[in-house]
Amino acid sequence: MNKRKIINDPVYGFITIPSDLVFDLIEHPYFQRLRYIKQLGMTHLVYPGALHTRFHHALGAMHLMKLSIEVLRSKGHEITQHEEEAVTIAILLHDVGHGPFSHALEHTLVQGLSHEHISVMLMDRLNQQFNGQLTTAIEIFNGTYSKGFLHELVSSQLDMDRLDYLNRDSFFTGVSEGVISSDRIIKMLNVKDGHIVIEEKGIYSVEKFLIARRLMYWQVYLHKTVIAAEQLLVKILQRSRQLVTNGKTLFATPALAYLLTNTITSDALMKADHHLEIFTALDDTDIMSAVKVWATNEDFVLAKLCTDFVQRKLFHVDITAQPVSEGYVDELLEKAADKYKISKAEAGYFVFSDSIRNDAYQPGDGNIRILMKNNTIIDIAAASDNSNLEALAKTVKKYILCYSKDLLISD
Amino acid sequence: MNKRKIINDPVYGFITIPSDLVFDLIEHPYFQRLRYIKQLGMTHLVYPGALHTRFHHALGAMHLMKLSIEVLRSKGHEITQHEEEAVTIAILLHDVGHGPFSHALEHTLVQGLSHEHISVMLMDRLNQQFNGQLTTAIEIFNGTYSKGFLHELVSSQLDMDRLDYLNRDSFFTGVSEGVISSDRIIKMLNVKDGHIVIEEKGIYSVEKFLIARRLMYWQVYLHKTVIAAEQLLVKILQRSRQLVTNGKTLFATPALAYLLTNTITSDALMKADHHLEIFTALDDTDIMSAVKVWATNEDFVLAKLCTDFVQRKLFHVDITAQPVSEGYVDELLEKAADKYKISKAEAGYFVFSDSIRNDAYQPGDGNIRILMKNNTIIDIAAASDNSNLEALAKTVKKYILCYSKDLLISD
Amino acid sequence: MNKRKIINDPVYGFITIPSDLVFDLIEHPYFQRLRYIKQLGMTHLVYPGALHTRFHHALGAMHLMKLSIEVLRSKGHEITQHEEEAVTIAILLHDVGHGPFSHALEHTLVQGLSHEHISVMLMDRLNQQFNGQLTTAIEIFNGTYSKGFLHELVSSQLDMDRLDYLNRDSFFTGVSEGVISSDRIIKMLNVKDGHIVIEEKGIYSVEKFLIARRLMYWQVYLHKTVIAAEQLLVKILQRSRQLVTNGKTLFATPALAYLLTNTITSDALMKADHHLEIFTALDDTDIMSAVKVWATNEDFVLAKLCTDFVQRKLFHVDITAQPVSEGYVDELLEKAADKYKISKAEAGYFVFSDSIRNDAYQPGDGNIRILMKNNTIIDIAAASDNSNLEALAKTVKKYILCYSKDLLISD
Amino acid sequence: MNKRKIINDPVYGFITIPSDLVFDLIEHPYFQRLRYIKQLGMTHLVYPGALHTRFHHALGAMHLMKLSIEVLRSKGHEITQHEEEAVTIAILLHDVGHGPFSHALEHTLVQGLSHEHISVMLMDRLNQQFNGQLTTAIEIFNGTYSKGFLHELVSSQLDMDRLDYLNRDSFFTGVSEGVISSDRIIKMLNVKDGHIVIEEKGIYSVEKFLIARRLMYWQVYLHKTVIAAEQLLVKILQRSRQLVTNGKTLFATPALAYLLTNTITSDALMKADHHLEIFTALDDTDIMSAVKVWATNEDFVLAKLCTDFVQRKLFHVDITAQPVSEGYVDELLEKAADKYKISKAEAGYFVFSDSIRNDAYQPGDGNIRILMKNNTIIDIAAASDNSNLEALAKTVKKYILCYSKDLLISD
Repeated sequence: MNKRKIINDPVYGFITIPSDLVFDLIEHPYFQRLRYIKQLGMTHLVYPGALHTRFHHALGAMHLMKLSIEVLRSKGHEITQHEEEAVTIAILLHDVGHGPFSHALEHTLVQGLSHEHISVMLMDRLNQQFNGQLTTAIEIFNGTYSKGFLHELVSSQLDMDRLDYLNRDSFFTGVSEGVISSDRIIKMLNVKDGHIVIEEKGIYSVEKFLIARRLMYWQVYLHKTVIAAEQLLVKILQRSRQLVTNGKTLFATPALAYLLTNTITSDALMKADHHLEIFTALDDTDIMSAVKVWATNEDFVLAKLCTDFVQRKLFHVDITAQPVSEGYVDELLEKAADKYKISKAEAGYFVFSDSIRNDAYQPGDGNIRILMKNNTIIDIAAASDNSNLEALAKTVKKYILCYSKDLLISD
Repeated sequence: MNKRKIINDPVYGFITIPSDLVFDLIEHPYFQRLRYIKQLGMTHLVYPGALHTRFHHALGAMHLMKLSIEVLRSKGHEITQHEEEAVTIAILLHDVGHGPFSHALEHTLVQGLSHEHISVMLMDRLNQQFNGQLTTAIEIFNGTYSKGFLHELVSSQLDMDRLDYLNRDSFFTGVSEGVISSDRIIKMLNVKDGHIVIEEKGIYSVEKFLIARRLMYWQVYLHKTVIAAEQLLVKILQRSRQLVTNGKTLFATPALAYLLTNTITSDALMKADHHLEIFTALDDTDIMSAVKVWATNEDFVLAKLCTDFVQRKLFHVDITAQPVSEGYVDELLEKAADKYKISKAEAGYFVFSDSIRNDAYQPGDGNIRILMKNNTIIDIAAASDNSNLEALAKTVKKYILCYSKDLLISD
Repeated sequence: MNKRKIINDPVYGFITIPSDLVFDLIEHPYFQRLRYIKQLGMTHLVYPGALHTRFHHALGAMHLMKLSIEVLRSKGHEITQHEEEAVTIAILLHDVGHGPFSHALEHTLVQGLSHEHISVMLMDRLNQQFNGQLTTAIEIFNGTYSKGFLHELVSSQLDMDRLDYLNRDSFFTGVSEGVISSDRIIKMLNVKDGHIVIEEKGIYSVEKFLIARRLMYWQVYLHKTVIAAEQLLVKILQRSRQLVTNGKTLFATPALAYLLTNTITSDALMKADHHLEIFTALDDTDIMSAVKVWATNEDFVLAKLCTDFVQRKLFHVDITAQPVSEGYVDELLEKAADKYKISKAEAGYFVFSDSIRNDAYQPGDGNIRILMKNNTIIDIAAASDNSNLEALAKTVKKYILCYSKDLLISD
Repeated sequence: MNKRKIINDPVYGFITIPSDLVFDLIEHPYFQRLRYIKQLGMTHLVYPGALHTRFHHALGAMHLMKLSIEVLRSKGHEITQHEEEAVTIAILLHDVGHGPFSHALEHTLVQGLSHEHISVMLMDRLNQQFNGQLTTAIEIFNGTYSKGFLHELVSSQLDMDRLDYLNRDSFFTGVSEGVISSDRIIKMLNVKDGHIVIEEKGIYSVEKFLIARRLMYWQVYLHKTVIAAEQLLVKILQRSRQLVTNGKTLFATPALAYLLTNTITSDALMKADHHLEIFTALDDTDIMSAVKVWATNEDFVLAKLCTDFVQRKLFHVDITAQPVSEGYVDELLEKAADKYKISKAEAGYFVFSDSIRNDAYQPGDGNIRILMKNNTIIDIAAASDNSNLEALAKTVKKYILCYSKDLLISD
C-alpha cells in the first residue's frame, strides 16, 4: 500500500506524507479524531469560513517543518533522516491532546488538565504501540534532545505551530491582516550557537509576523462575539454539570455523560486507561448535539442558555481597560434575577465579568534571535532601529463584562 | 440595531447584507441551522479543507446575485428595489431545505422527500411569519414571476448557485482545476428576449466553467473515497433503521430517533407542523454523534460499519464503464458472509453495486444562450467553432462496486 | 463605439471604464504615454516583477475610487453623477505629470519642476481640449471644491493613490509584507464634519496599512540596490548633460536631446507649448535606449557609468544612522581618481553621499481620522490603546554612501 | 560573495539561484538583456499587466525544473548533481536567443533566423567563455544526452517552458482562464521507459492544462488587438527597412540601424562575432524609441503607421474561418490609396490579409504519456474516456484581414 500520499491544502497547495510511520500515525484514531475538533471553536459564528480543524493545522505545521529542514540542511546543518522524522512527528502530534472547544472545556469539564499534558500522555501511549519509534520525537517535544534547535522548531516564539496557525486562521477567516510571509521567514532560518536564528534581512518579515499575530488577537481570537460564544458555552457546561451533580439526568453521548458525572484529575488520567479512552472519544459533535437537545430541558437556566446558543443570541460583551465596577455587576445580577425569576446565584449564569490578555511577544522566553550580518546575535526587539516592537512586548490586559442581551435596555 | 452587516468571506473578501429583511431571514433558526450542514458531506475525508457549510454557500450565492443585478442594471434592464430584494431572498433560501448529508439521507431516512420540495415548504412557512414579504421571492423561485430571467439567475445551467458552489468547493478543497472566472462571466451577463444571455466575448469563460464543472465531478463530487464514505453512511443509516424497526433502541438525539422510527412522507410533512420542526432540528452533529456511539453497539453489522466509518476504513470502490458482473458480486457476498459469520442478506451491507453519472451540460434544459455580436442568440454548444462542448453534453454513466476492504486479498 | 470597456487587472480582477469622457481621457496621448513609464523606475532590477506602469496604477486608483463612492453613497452621503465623474477624473489624472524615472529626472534634467505641478498644467490643457468638462475635477484636485472630502479621496494620508500603489507595488514585487486590506478600509469609509473618516472597527486595518507602508519603504522603495540603480542613473544624466553643455553631441531621441541642451523652468513650461509637448514625448525608452548607446561613448566617465548600468554593476551603498564622515568620502574620492586616472571632481561621479527619509505617517497633515462609536473623531495615532503608531509617526532619516564596487577591497 | 540569492516572484513566491555557475550565467549580459524583452510583446496594449519579461520567465521555468527534479528523485530516479545543474542551465537559457518582439522581427529584420537557432549559438559562445561547463546542458537542450527524459523536461508538450509561461502569462494578464495546476502536474511526473510520463491520477490536471493553453491562445496570444498591434509593428519595420534600402537615413540606435541596413543570414551570424554582438545589443527600447521618433518622419507611410502605433490607433482586424475574398481586399486597397493619396503598392501597408493557427496539442510529437495504474503507457488523448482531447488535437487555422480603422465606414 502506498503511504506517501499527497493531501490537497488550500493554504499551501499540497502536503506530502513523508514516511510510512507518519502515515500510520495520521491514520491512528487519536489523530483522526482531530478531524472533528475545530481549531477555532465557535469563531465560525463570526467568520463563517473558520471551520478548519486541528487535523488540518497539524498537517500544515508538518509541511512547514519539512520546508524548514530543507533550508537548514542547505545551509550546512546536519539533520539526520531519523531526526527529520522525529521532529516531523513531534510537530504533527504537538496538539494531539486537544479536546473539543479546549478553552471552554479546560475551564469546566477537564479542569486542571492542560492539553499539553494530555498530548504528552498520548504520545507516550503511541510510543508503546509503535514499539519505541517515537522516543526521539518525544525527547524533541520535551526539549531534552541534544540538538536543542529542533525543539525550537516545535515550540518557541517563532515555531511551525505559530507560523501555520496564523497562516491558516487568516486564510479561513478571510482576515487578510493576519497574512504572514512564512515562506520568507523559513528561507531566513539558520542555526547559531545551537539556537534557531533569523538572518538579518528577514527582520521585516519577523516584525510583520509579530504585528500580524497581535492584529489576529484583537480581530479574531479575542473578538467580542467569539468571546461571547465561548463564555456562553462555559456557562452551559457549568450548569449541566451542576444539574448532573444534583442528580438530574441529561441527554449526552456516553463520553460526555462520563465527564459530566466524574472529575478526572491528572493523576486519574494517568492511572486508568479508560479515562484516556473516554477523553479521546470526545469531539465537537458530542457537545453540539447535546446542547441542541438541552435547549428544551426543564431547567430554566440550562434551557435558556442553550436556546440562546442555538439561536445565536450571544451575550452582550463590554471590553474595557479598567476592571468592571462591582456595583454595576451587582445591579445587573439583580436585574437578571428579577427578569428571569431566578435566584441571584443562578443569575450569575447570565451576568459575569472576567479578564483577557494578549501576549504578542515576550522577550526572554523562547525569544526570537536575529543573526546580524556581523555574525552577532541580538533579540528582535533590539535588532531594528525602525522598530516598534517594544510596544508589542507589553502584555495588554483587558476586562470583559458579559450579560444576556435581554438585559440591554435597547440595542 | 445595525443590520447591514459585513461578513468576511475567504472566497470573495466581503459579503454585505443588503437589507433588514434579509438580515432577519439569515438570523432565523431555519437558516442558522445551515451553519451545521456541510456543503460536501464527508468529502473532507479526502480534502480536509472541505468543511464549508450550506450557510456560507447561500451567502456567497447571494453576493454573486448582487453583482449580477448591478451588471444587468448598468446595461439598461430595469430591476426594481423590490425585485432585487426578492431575487436575493430566492437565492439565499434556494437550499434551505437541505438536511445533513443530503444524498445519504434522501436514500434512507427521508426517502421521497427532495430538498427542493422542503425548501419550498420552508419558504412558505417563512412567508407566513414575515407577513407575505417573501411572496415575490417565492414566485421567482418557482418560475412564475413575470420577469423570467430573474428565475434563471436562481436556477438554470449558469445560475448563481452553480457559480458559487464551483468557486467555493474549488477554494476549500484546494482543487484549483475547479476555479472559474465568475467575475468575468457575471460581467458578460445580459438579458435578451426575456432570457439571461452571455455576450459573445464571454464564450471562453463559459466554456471554462463547463469544463471546470466536469473536472470537479470526477475529482471531487464523484471521487472514489467520497463515494466510499457516502455509501458507508447510507449502509449505517439503513442498518440502524432496520434495527429500530425490529424493536431495538439506539442512542440518538430526539430528532434523529424520530426519523429512525417514523416514515415521513411528503404529505405528512405538509400536514403536521411538528414534522417540519423535527426535520429542521437535524444537522450533521446528530448523525456524527450517533455513529460514534453505535460503533460499540451489540449488533455486529451496525458496530462494524460504524467502527469502519469512525476509523476511516472506508469501502473499497471500483469504478467501471461496464456494469459489474452479478457473479462477482455474489462471490464477494459469500466471502463476506463467511468471513463475518453473518447471513448473506446481512453481507449486503458490506458488498453492493450501484451506478453514478455526471451531467456537465444538457442542451435544451435551462440551456446557456450566447448573444452574438450580430445580435442573434445561439446555444453555447453551437457558438464556438473551437468548441469541444459536444463531448461535455454527453452524460457519462459509470458503475461502482463497493465492498469492505477486509475482503481485499491484498492492497 | 462602445466606450464602457472592461480592463483585466491582476490586482482587482476587472476595472470598468465608467463613462465616455473617461474613456476619451484614457485614450489621449498624455495618458497613453504613462504606459511606458514604470511606476517604480529601476526597482525591477531587484524585484523582476516590478514592471507595472503609472498607466495601470492610475486605472487601479480609479477603480478604488468607484468602490469608495459606492460605500459613501450607501451611507447616505450625496455625491452627484457629475461629482462622481469629476473625482474619478481627478484620481485618474493625479499622476499624469510624471516623467520617466521621476526622482532621477527631477534631480537632473527637469530640476525645479515637480510632477504635481506638471500634472496641473496638463489637466488645464486637457480642460481646454475637452471644453471645460474637467473644471470640477481640477477644483477637486486642487482642494478648492466645496465638498472637501472629495479632495481627501484624491490626496490625503489614506487616499486612493496610496491604497492602490501599496496594493500594486506589493503585488508586482511579490513582497507580501505590503499587502493591505483596501477592501476593508474602503468599507469603513464615512464622512463626518466634511472630512473622510474611518469607522472605529476599521482601526486595525488602518494600522496595518501604515505598517505595510513603512515595511514597503524599507524593503522596496529605499532598498539598497534600488537606491544604487537610481543614483547611478542620476550620475549618468548629470554627466551627459555636462558633456552636452560642453559642446559634445550625444546620441538621443529629439525629446531627450532637447532636455539635455535646454533648461526648462516652470515659467518656460507654461509659456511655450512646445516645451510641454517635448516633456510629454518622453518616456522610459528614451532614457534606456540612450544609456545603452552611451556605454561605448569616448568619454570615460559616461561610458563607465553606462556600462556599469547596463551590466548591472551598481554602486555599493552603505546605509547608516549617522552622517558619513567627510574624511572617509575624501579618501574614497582619492582612490577613485587614482584608479580611474580622472580628476577628483570627476571622481565625484563614482563616490558620493546623500540622505534618505521615510515618513510613514505625519499626524496633523491630511491626517487619518477615526470615527469612534460614541460619534467623536480622534486621530488614528490616539485612537488605539494597543497602538504603536507613535513610533510610525517619527520620521526616520538615514544617510547613504555610494561608491563604485571597483573601490571595494573585497566583496 | 554570496551567489545563492533568493529572488521574489509574484507567481511562485521565491526563486532560489541554485549554484554559482547559474548565478554567473544570470549575470551575463546575454541573459541580463532579457530584462528588457517582454515575453508578450505588445500584448500589454490589451492586458496592461502583461509587462513581464523573458528574464522572469526563464527564472520561473528554472524554478519549476527544480521542483520536478525533486519529485523524480523522490520516486527513485537517479539524477546526479551535475545533471541537475545541466538541465537547470538548459531551461534557463532555452529562450536566450529571443530578440525584441520576436514574431515581428522574425518576419522582417532577422528573416530566416529563428530564436531557437540563435539560442544554440549563444549557448555555444557561453560554453567557450565558461570553459566547457555548459557541454552537458547543450547536449540536453539538443536532445543528444543519454537520459532523454531530461530533454523532455526542457522541450516537449508538457515541459517547464510551457508550464511556466501559461502560469505567468495568465497571472500577469489577469486572465484566470489560463491558470493551471503546475504544482499538481509536477507532483504527478514520473519516468518510464526513458520518457517523462504523468501518473494516471494527474490526468485531469493535464487535460486542464491543454484546455487552458487553448483558451490562452484565443483570449491572449491570438487576441484581435494583440494581432493588430503586432501587424502594425511588422508594417513599420518593413517600411523603415524599405526606406533605408532606398537611401533614406532614419533615427535609430546603432544596433537597430545595422539591422535596417544589413541582411543577416544564419551563416553570417555564425561567421562574424560582431553580428551576434549587434543582435544581443537589441531590446524592446531600441524599437520603441525609434518608432516614437519616426512618427514625425517626412515619409507619409512611415509617419502614419508610427503615429497610429503611438496613439494606439491599431488596425481593424477581422478573424474568419474562410480565406478573405481577394476582391474585397482589392477594394479596400483602392480605398486606402485613394484616401491617403498613395500608390496601391503603398496601400498594402494599410490593408492586408494573413492566417493564424493554434496547435493546442499534437499527438505523436513530443506527446504526453500517461502512466496507467496497470503500468501501461498511453497517450493523453486516449487515456481519458471522459476526454474531449480529440477536439484539442485538431489544428485550428483562421484567416485575418487587417486594415486601418480610417477605412471603416463607421465603428
